[in-house]
Parts: sequence; structure tokens; C-alpha cells
Amino acid sequence: MLDALFRPQSVAIIGASNRELTIGYRIVQNLVDSGYKGPIFTINPKAKFIKNFVAYKDITEVPMEVDLAHIIVKNTRVPGEIEKCGQKGVKVVIVNTAGFKEIGPEGAKLEEEMLAIARKYGIRVFGPNCQGVMNSDPEVRAYCNFTFTKMVPGSISVMAQSGGVGEVINNRLYEMGLGFRMYASYGNQCDINATEILEYWGNDPGTKVILLHIETLADAANFAKVAREITKHKPILAMKTGRTKLGAKAVSSHTGGMMEVDTSTNLLLEKCGILTFNDEEELCQAARALAALPAATGNRVAIVTNTGGPGIIVTDEIIEHGCEMAELSEESKKVLKENLYPEAAVSNPVDVLATATPEHYQLAAATLMKDPNVDIVFINFITPFFVDTEGVARGLVEVATAAAKPMIVVAMTEKEGWASTLKIFADAGIPTFDMPEIGGRVAAAMARYAALKSRQEAKPVAYSDVDRQAAARLIENTRQAGRQFMSQSDAFSLLAAYGLPVIANSEVGDLDGALAAAAEIGYPVTLKVEAEEVVHKSDAGGVVLNLKDDAALRQAFDRLTAAFPGCRVFVQRFVDPGTEVMIGATRENPELGHVVAFGLGGIFVEVLKDVVFRLNPLSPEDIRAMIRGIKGFPILAGVRGQEGVDLARLEELLGRVSVLLADHPEIAEMDLNPIFVYPAGREPGLVDVRIRLV
Amino acid sequence: MLDALFRPQSVAIIGASNRELTIGYRIVQNLVDSGYKGPIFTINPKAKFIKNFVAYKDITEVPMEVDLAHIIVKNTRVPGEIEKCGQKGVKVVIVNTAGFKEIGPEGAKLEEEMLAIARKYGIRVFGPNCQGVMNSDPEVRAYCNFTFTKMVPGSISVMAQSGGVGEVINNRLYEMGLGFRMYASYGNQCDINATEILEYWGNDPGTKVILLHIETLADAANFAKVAREITKHKPILAMKTGRTKLGAKAVSSHTGGMMEVDTSTNLLLEKCGILTFNDEEELCQAARALAALPAATGNRVAIVTNTGGPGIIVTDEIIEHGCEMAELSEESKKVLKENLYPEAAVSNPVDVLATATPEHYQLAAATLMKDPNVDIVFINFITPFFVDTEGVARGLVEVATAAAKPMIVVAMTEKEGWASTLKIFADAGIPTFDMPEIGGRVAAAMARYAALKSRQEAKPVAYSDVDRQAAARLIENTRQAGRQFMSQSDAFSLLAAYGLPVIANSEVGDLDGALAAAAEIGYPVTLKVEAEEVVHKSDAGGVVLNLKDDAALRQAFDRLTAAFPGCRVFVQRFVDPGTEVMIGATRENPELGHVVAFGLGGIFVEVLKDVVFRLNPLSPEDIRAMIRGIKGFPILAGVRGQEGVDLARLEELLGRVSVLLADHPEIAEMDLNPIFVYPAGREPGLVDVRIRLV
Repeated sequence: MLDALFRPQSVAIIGASNRELTIGYRIVQNLVDSGYKGPIFTINPKAKFIKNFVAYKDITEVPMEVDLAHIIVKNTRVPGEIEKCGQKGVKVVIVNTAGFKEIGPEGAKLEEEMLAIARKYGIRVFGPNCQGVMNSDPEVRAYCNFTFTKMVPGSISVMAQSGGVGEVINNRLYEMGLGFRMYASYGNQCDINATEILEYWGNDPGTKVILLHIETLADAANFAKVAREITKHKPILAMKTGRTKLGAKAVSSHTGGMMEVDTSTNLLLEKCGILTFNDEEELCQAARALAALPAATGNRVAIVTNTGGPGIIVTDEIIEHGCEMAELSEESKKVLKENLYPEAAVSNPVDVLATATPEHYQLAAATLMKDPNVDIVFINFITPFFVDTEGVARGLVEVATAAAKPMIVVAMTEKEGWASTLKIFADAGIPTFDMPEIGGRVAAAMARYAALKSRQEAKPVAYSDVDRQAAARLIENTRQAGRQFMSQSDAFSLLAAYGLPVIANSEVGDLDGALAAAAEIGYPVTLKVEAEEVVHKSDAGGVVLNLKDDAALRQAFDRLTAAFPGCRVFVQRFVDPGTEVMIGATRENPELGHVVAFGLGGIFVEVLKDVVFRLNPLSPEDIRAMIRGIKGFPILAGVRGQEGVDLARLEELLGRVSVLLADHPEIAEMDLNPIFVYPAGREPGLVDVRIRLV
Repeated sequence: MLDALFRPQSVAIIGASNRELTIGYRIVQNLVDSGYKGPIFTINPKAKFIKNFVAYKDITEVPMEVDLAHIIVKNTRVPGEIEKCGQKGVKVVIVNTAGFKEIGPEGAKLEEEMLAIARKYGIRVFGPNCQGVMNSDPEVRAYCNFTFTKMVPGSISVMAQSGGVGEVINNRLYEMGLGFRMYASYGNQCDINATEILEYWGNDPGTKVILLHIETLADAANFAKVAREITKHKPILAMKTGRTKLGAKAVSSHTGGMMEVDTSTNLLLEKCGILTFNDEEELCQAARALAALPAATGNRVAIVTNTGGPGIIVTDEIIEHGCEMAELSEESKKVLKENLYPEAAVSNPVDVLATATPEHYQLAAATLMKDPNVDIVFINFITPFFVDTEGVARGLVEVATAAAKPMIVVAMTEKEGWASTLKIFADAGIPTFDMPEIGGRVAAAMARYAALKSRQEAKPVAYSDVDRQAAARLIENTRQAGRQFMSQSDAFSLLAAYGLPVIANSEVGDLDGALAAAAEIGYPVTLKVEAEEVVHKSDAGGVVLNLKDDAALRQAFDRLTAAFPGCRVFVQRFVDPGTEVMIGATRENPELGHVVAFGLGGIFVEVLKDVVFRLNPLSPEDIRAMIRGIKGFPILAGVRGQEGVDLARLEELLGRVSVLLADHPEIAEMDLNPIFVYPAGREPGLVDVRIRLV
């Protein structure tokens, strides 16, 4: 439990200072300014007092119990201070000091030394190399941090890997009048880590929404486990930075860790039901909406506007961000037609006209709330001089507070002149957004959240006709042989053990074996060299397609064995090309499932990057979404009068691959490329497979 | 000249009112509140006085000259009031009243009637169905509008087709402390139109930047002519709304005009050197930067930051928006290394660390300004308690105001606590941005502006070896024959007249002719039916490829003429397929050049929409950018060890098509699809052409 960290009964500052431009001064000042509810102890052997506080030479001299101690002294002196904290019985320390793991091996050693002492005494350590924490709970008011955001109690808790990003977010929440609940920027997280804090906030009734800033995700498996539980009842929103190659490079040089552009973090976040963002403003505004409004259950938006232009902007914005414009029910249109101005537009967007009365607005909003075709009601409200704008606000608030669907209100106005109108929304807890664009993006975030929720409820695919014993044997074979890549025939047998449609094949050592195999399989056949080191077999000339008879086989076999002396040969029934797709899988993070890739293969994947990724295991919904998520999907569905491919069989194929991967974490990499898929009724052809074990 | 509109010596309000919730009251009030510098006359036959002003029964009773009259009376009474304005000698009227062209034929008639009277007297008309204009010039202070934005003098002029969007923009500029110079929202623009206002602002020394909101662009050719002149010396920034299909539908129902999603407006805007945006916030923030800072001359950004996380966000943001991270010169790195903290990161982003001093910041900024590899200097500055932040601000201001390159400053701070620091930037006219994301997008807008400027200086391609007489004759042929589509042979001859590489071909009426043509051309040949009504010839079975000898030709000819009785037949030398590309052209707006499309053809264009558009005529830079602008460009450049195609020949091909189109506005539509392109040294093969005349 992290109560000693977030709800300390008393705080000591080891390294407190009277010099204003120091962290040791600032933390004392921040605790005082924030109205911290417990005693503060300043430790400094050279001072008599720090600000208004007696300065103790040593924490052991403090005459009361100490829950939390900041340590701000030079890095090499930190272990000694922790020793003293142990003698004193301090529960948790925040080591603000830098100069540990992040500077290299020497710092790492110091970090271990410090941690060993802390463990000896059962002290929990937050940091080192960190900002600290804050808790705005009026009963606590602990500003254990040296930064500048004003602390106002709110319901959003913020955890930031980068203290700078944390400051920008906190400050923006403050400007928006929201404040925050708790805050943490955890630095090297040598002991208390992000996952533990996340879990604590998941159980904090005062935290309604959690915001995360992430550069690199440590402890991914535990994080995922904890996050999935929390998102069932509390929204988590996250921003992962370093998403471009150069951004990732900047993360590396900033955190000292190695980092490539990773695709898995965002996939993981979404799999845990976490809503992801690329923009702090959007993150904060969406948090505001999710903290205040009922969650949406779909993506169909209906707009009410009293000005045409901004209605168009909202339409553009929500469509581009994945929403749909709701098709209003006939009943709704009838009610609107009968009650609004005759010139009003009663399709979506509903234009109530600039002179719309409070009654018009309230009726329109209430009608759309009731419409079963509408998931999100969007209000555009510009404040003309000649309208009772307070009346409009009261009417909208009445509808919004009674509704089970969210109402996104964009109030376009001069904020001083119309302060009393805006206050009506604010007092009712209905957020208002300044510009139609940000309102549109918030509505889209609500819709994405609805999709995440329903995705989270989906179960992974499962098949009962799987031969797990055979599979284990095949993998064991490969290990025994000391190989990293499975042989073609073993790999195909592994696929077959999972019920995947495998083309008849056989691995042979000589020409006679090849001829016998071909007779068994039936012509035409394909020959491939079988050698671990030849990865791109086609490019290397190690594949001969469509051999029609013994004579052709002989010739090809001789050619292959001449080019690749001593190789074994893989004989496979030749199948005529269908529409090409590929399935790939890699394990970027050993704590997580495989990242599964799906695309049309060839240049579609390599040049056009038309490929979708999801984290295994996959649900039926995941599989449908992946197949339909590529730009080239119309090619699979059938285009220009051509028959599409058998999508049900393709879905099953992806499903069985997903189960195979889930059962075999020891698969480091898998490539099914190409796979030929055909019109309804014909099994796909898995032509080539490559499986590498860890 | 629009001085009477924007700098009126006196203003009358016909339809002024004492009822507060009316436009007739509000305009009087706004003129008074804004401190208008001339006399105000209120006209209302039923009142004795309006507010503090004598109410005249009739404008002819006004005892002084009237420059500008608002007309707010019922639509049917407007012509009569204009008649009186004519008698009085009023120079310009703003008809705020709605109920004209936008409501249908009856309103259109009323609009014409009104306009005829105005013309008789030489009165200029602004509107009808409009908000009005504003001029914040301290010598004028004319708030001829019924809206609510506070008028503060600024250097940005705003023209909005939607009054609502105009209000959002004006209000945002006000909140940003910028105000505006002049404003216009012109409604039906029956007389004074957007182009005329644009020209007026182009010549207004007080207008430094022009912002436009556009739903549909009327008067495109004149607009383009005027805009291109202005952008040579003054930035124009525009936001076109209705860019999604449903957004465009909303525009239609809002403006009453017909509208499909148009690709040509943004192409036109960019061709005129106008910077386009999809977001009002970005539009306003970029306007702020362009009004205050020197223009950038390239897209290479160097970042200085005192906090890692926000530096990463900026990196992600600028890369995703088309900038490059500057590669700092060795000299710069040396200077930084010698003068910053030893732990500072001296590659880009330069991390000066949280404790960086004013000297560090100033030195880093000055060094990057001097670096020839840097076009834009980007400052991320979070304000720690323990730093002399005012000193940092002073140092940065010193560098920024002396530099010829722009400095984008993101100041992350609590605005009240650090007001004095922010004021140092504000007083020096250096904009500060709150969040790293918006700063990054503004930097990207500066870079796009640099690219637009250099594009604007480029001349269209030209070729001297063009046979324009032959071309005219061929087009005349088609007209004479009463056809809309050119015959294949005429179309190919037209291409040949422009020096395009045409495959040997001949149009024939019978088998003997076909055999003779094939003998002349040489086998193998392709046969195509030649009939205007058969557009998709391949799909209809009207094409037979790769006929190798007379026998094959005979058979194919018989089959074709049986399927398409009475058709003429087009014989063409068969060429083996190369890499497929397509060039298309349409004329969406008859006032403008063709929209030229380029892509890889087939599913790349039809399914994946991997196609780029530019407005003709094209410069060599346009052509290079188009070819390199498709996602599939690596296929043309050569991928997976395959040789690329002859890009120089492809560029020439696109160039010659551009000249052909520029010479022939009567071409409504043109399709060159497929075109086969080959590795270096081989001419492209124009296999199929379709040309439709207007």
C-alpha cells in the first residue's frame, strides 16, 4: 500500500535549504503553500532553522514519527541517509537526487547499494532521479514535488514518465479549472513502479480518470494485468511519445535506454482498454469529458448547431476521426420539423438557426438524446446578442444531466461577456469546449472509448481440435537438433497440428526420395532447398515451381543439389496462385504476447506499409477488424466485378494462428508469406512458412 | 476602392431599433461601444430617437453626407430603401437582411431588383444575408456588424464565408491578445465579393497577414490572379471546410449551393501561395507566428529544450508534419559542448538541462541561428523555480529579434506566477506557445510556407517542339464529327503532336485494312474496337492483345466485329507490359486549369487511393513532387533489387501532358491509363487514351 507515499502523516526533507533557488527550499515552500495537513521536518546539519522550521542535524533527531522523507543530498551520500531513515523508522523515501542508474554502471551500483539498505529496513523507495508526488485530497494536501503547478483538488490523477510532460498536463488541467487528484513522476522506479501506483489509483475512490505519459513501458505484463482490471470501471488515457524514428531516438538519448520505434506499446495499451492520444491538449480535454459525462456506447454522432460553418467543421472532424453521422429516426425528424423554425434544417447536422430560442435548443437536444440511432449528442452553440443564452444553457443542462448518453457542448463566445452563461454549464458539471474542432475530437475519443470497452469484453478465439502433444514434439525436435529455424516439414506439421490447411509435402534427402514423394503427393510439385541458413529461398534460387513430371523433377533436383550441395530438399504440391496475403508474428517484448501482423503481402506490405498489427491473443472481433482494417480490403472483398475471397476461411486461418502463437511463447518470429486465398469454398494455401524459436 | 465600406466617414442604420434583442439595436450599440470616429444616423419612421440618437424617418432626411448605410428592414422593403439611399447619395450599403438568392428563385429575383437600383445610382452593395465588416484602425474604429467579438487593433485581417467561423477565429485572436485589423463576412456577395476585399487588404499597409475561411470558392480565376500577387509580399492563410463527403453535404444544405467534395479548391489555394489549414486553432497560431517572425526558408528544425519529454513531443510532431531534424554543424556542436553543462545533449534536440542558465539558453539559441544547416530554431522552455527565467527570456529575445530566421518559443509555465517572464517575450513581439504540440505544428506551417514560396517562383514547363496546328485540327475533327470523345487514332495523334511517345497504330474499317496495318506496324499487334459508347473496352471484351500473325489477327478481327457489329477497329503495336502508371485530368472548375492526377494505376489508384493531384500548369518542381509524392514511389525508384524506371522520361511525359492540357481548355477529361514505363533508356508506352471534350 502506498498510503505513506500519497497520504503521509508527516514529511521530512533531508537536504532542506534556505537558498531560494534550490530544490531543498522549494519542496518545503510547496508543502507550506499547498497547506499540507501534517508536520514538516527540515534536516540540514549546517542550519539552525529552515524557513520557519527548526533544522535537525539528522533525521534520527526528529521528535515524532516520519512517514515520508525527501532525500535531496548528493548522490554518494544517499545510501548513508537511507541508513539513518531506517534507524528512524521512516516508511517511504522520495529520492529526488539524480546520478544513479541513468548515468551508467557506477550509478547503477550506487542505486543497488541504496536499495539494499532500504530493503533491510523495509523502507519503500520512490525514484531516484525523480520529481516526486502530489495529492490534492483536502485531507492531505501533500505537494511532495519541486514544480510549479498550482494544486487544486480534482478527480483526474496524472502519472508522467517525463516530469516536463507531467507539468504541461497538470498546468493545462489547472487552466481548464479541473485541477488533479494525485500526481506522480517516478524517475528510475528502482522500487515503487508505475504499475503499483496505477493499482493504488485504481482503488482510490477520489480518482475518476487516470492519465499516463509513457516513453518506455517497463514491467509490461504486470502493468497489463493491473490496467485491464482498472479499465473495467475507470477510464485510463495515455500518451506514448517517441512514435517517430527520430522521436524514439530522442527518447533513447533522454532516458539512456535503448529504444527502437516500438509498435507494441500502443497495441498493449489498447488491448488493456486504455485510450491512446498523440496530443496533450486532446488528452486533457478527453479526460475532462470522460470524468464528467456518461460513457458513449457507439460512434453515431448527432449535431445541433445554430451556425452553419462550425457545424460543417464538426462534421469533417468527427468523420475523419472514425465517427459516423447519425441517421436520425423519422420520429425525431418529425418532432424537430414540428417544433423548430420552418427554415431550420432537421437532418443531421440539425441547424436550429442563429435566432433559436432556449425551447428550440432544449427540444432538439432532448429529441436526439431519445433517438435510438444516436450515441453522442453534439451541441454547437454560438452566443448571439439577440438570444437568451442563459436560457439555452439551462435547457441544455437539464437535458444533459438527465441523459445516459454524453452531450458534447461547444460554446463559442466571448468568455467575459458571457461568463454567466458559461457558469451555468460549469456549475452543472457539463464541460464546454471553445472550438468545434476540439469538441469533434473529444466526441471521437468518446466513440473510441466505446469501441475499446466492447473489445475488452471479447474473449480470445479457441479451437478444440488442436493436437498440442504433436506440436510440443515438433518444437522439441528443433531444439534437439540445435536449430533456431524449424525445418519446413516440421513447421508445416506444426501448422497442421493446429488445424491449418497445409499443402501436401515431404522432406527428402535424394532424388529417389523426391520422385517417390512426388508420386505420393501428385504432380505438379514445387521443390525448395531445406537449409537453415538460406532464408530468402526464392531470391537465392532455391525454389523451383510447378514441376509437371518426373523428367522436370529430375532436372530441377540436379540443379538444386548442384547449387546447394548436401542440402535436403522439400517437395510440396504446387498450388496455383490466389490472392496473396501474409501473416507475421514477432515477440518484441518477452513479457507480452506476440505482435501479429496481417496484410496483402509483397509490395502492399513492404512498400505501401498497408499492414495492421494487434497483440495476441486475438478475439473474433480483433480478427474481423484486422482483415477489414487494411486499405486493400476491397481486394479481398472483391473489386471491379471480381469475386472476393472466402473471408470466413481467412478469419479461421488467422484465428488458428493466434491460438498456435498463444500456446507457444517460445516462437520468436513467424512468417506465413505468401498465403494464397481463394473464392468461397476453397481452402487457403499456406505456401511458405518460416518459424524461428527463441 | 472600398474605402467607403472599410473607412466610412459616416454610418446610417436603416432599421435601427430600441429593442435590445435585435440586430437594429446591436449595430448601433456596437458602433458606439467600439468608439467609431464618425457620426451615426439612426433611421426608423416609428421612433423619435434610438438610444442617444435622433431617429430620422427616412435616410433622405439625414442632414449630412452618408458613406455607408446598413439595411436591416424586411427583404421586400430593401429595394425601396436602396432607392432612397440613391437619392441621398450613399456610397455603399451593407444589406444584413436575409431572404434573397439563398432561399431560391423568388429571392434571387429580389436580389437582382435591388442590385439594379444600386447600379443605377452607383451604390456598391455588400451582402445581402451577411454579418458585415469591421475595421479596428484607431482612426476609424468601425464595428459595422452585429456580433460579439471585442475589437482590439491588430495586424491580421479576417474574411469568413461563414460568420460563425469568423466569430470563432476573431474571438480566438482576441483571446491570444492579437485582435484583428479588418474583418468581413460577405454573405451572398451579389456585388462586392471576396476577391475585391482580398485585393483591398493586399494594399492595406496595416494588414500583415490575411486569414480566409472558405466553403465554396466563387470567381476562382480572378481570385487566383489577385491572391498570387498578394502572396508575393503578404502571407494568406486559409481554411476550407467541407472536406469530407458528409461535410461537403452539410455545406450544400447550409449554403443552398450544390457541392461535391472538391479537390480543386485546396489545390488552387496552394498554387496561389496560400497556406491551408484544417483547424482554426492552428490557423490562428500560425497567423500569429507569420505576423511576428521572419519567414523560414526551409524545413530543417533545431530544438533547444530544458526538459526531455517535451523535446520528444516536438520531434514527433515536426517529423509527422513534414519537417526535418536539422543535422547540426560540427562547429555548432563544438561551441555547445564547450559552453553548456557537461551532461547537456549537444545533438538535436539540444537538451540544456533543467538548471540551464540564461547564458546557456542564449548561447544555444545564437549558435543554432548561425548554423547554416538550420532553418527554424525551436525553443522549449519550462520555467523551473530555481532558474532566472526572466534572464532566459531576455537572452532569447535578444537572439530572436536580431535573427533573420524564425524562433518558435514554447513557454511551459503557470501564467500568473510567471507573468513577468512571459511579458518579456510579449513586449518584444515574440509569440510564445503553451504546448509543444502546437509549437511543433506552427514550425511545420512555417516550413510549408517556405516550400510554397519557392514553388510560387517556379515557371511552368514548356517545350518548343509542339505542333499546335496539328493539334487544333484534330480537335476540330472531333467537333465536326459531332463527337464528345476523340477517336483513338485522333487522340493518339494529338499526343504525338505534343511530342509524346505514341505506339505505332492505325484505324481500319475492314479485315484487309487491319492486315495491311499490321504489316506496316509489324507483329505482334493489339486490336481494339473503336466506338464512342464503349468506354471500358477491356471489361466489355473489346480488346484483344498480343496477336502474333495474320491468322491470329483474322480470328480476333472476326470475333470483334461479330461482337460489335459495324465498329471500326484500332490496330496498335503490342508492347510488353512495364510498370503501370496513370495520368488523369479533369476540369472541375471551368475558370481554372485542369486538375492533373498521377498514380500507379489499377488498384493502386482505385482501391488504395494512392494518387496525387495538382492544378495545371505544372512546373518541373510540381512534376518531381507529384511523382515522388505517391506512397508507391519506391516501386518506380526500384525496390527489392529490381531496377527502377526511367524517371527523367516519366517527368518529361507528365510535362508534355501538362502543356497539352494548358493549350486545350476544351478538354473536359483525359485519361492515360495504363501507361507502361520501363528502366532507363526505353520510351514509355502510352497504351490507352481517352479524351472527352466539353
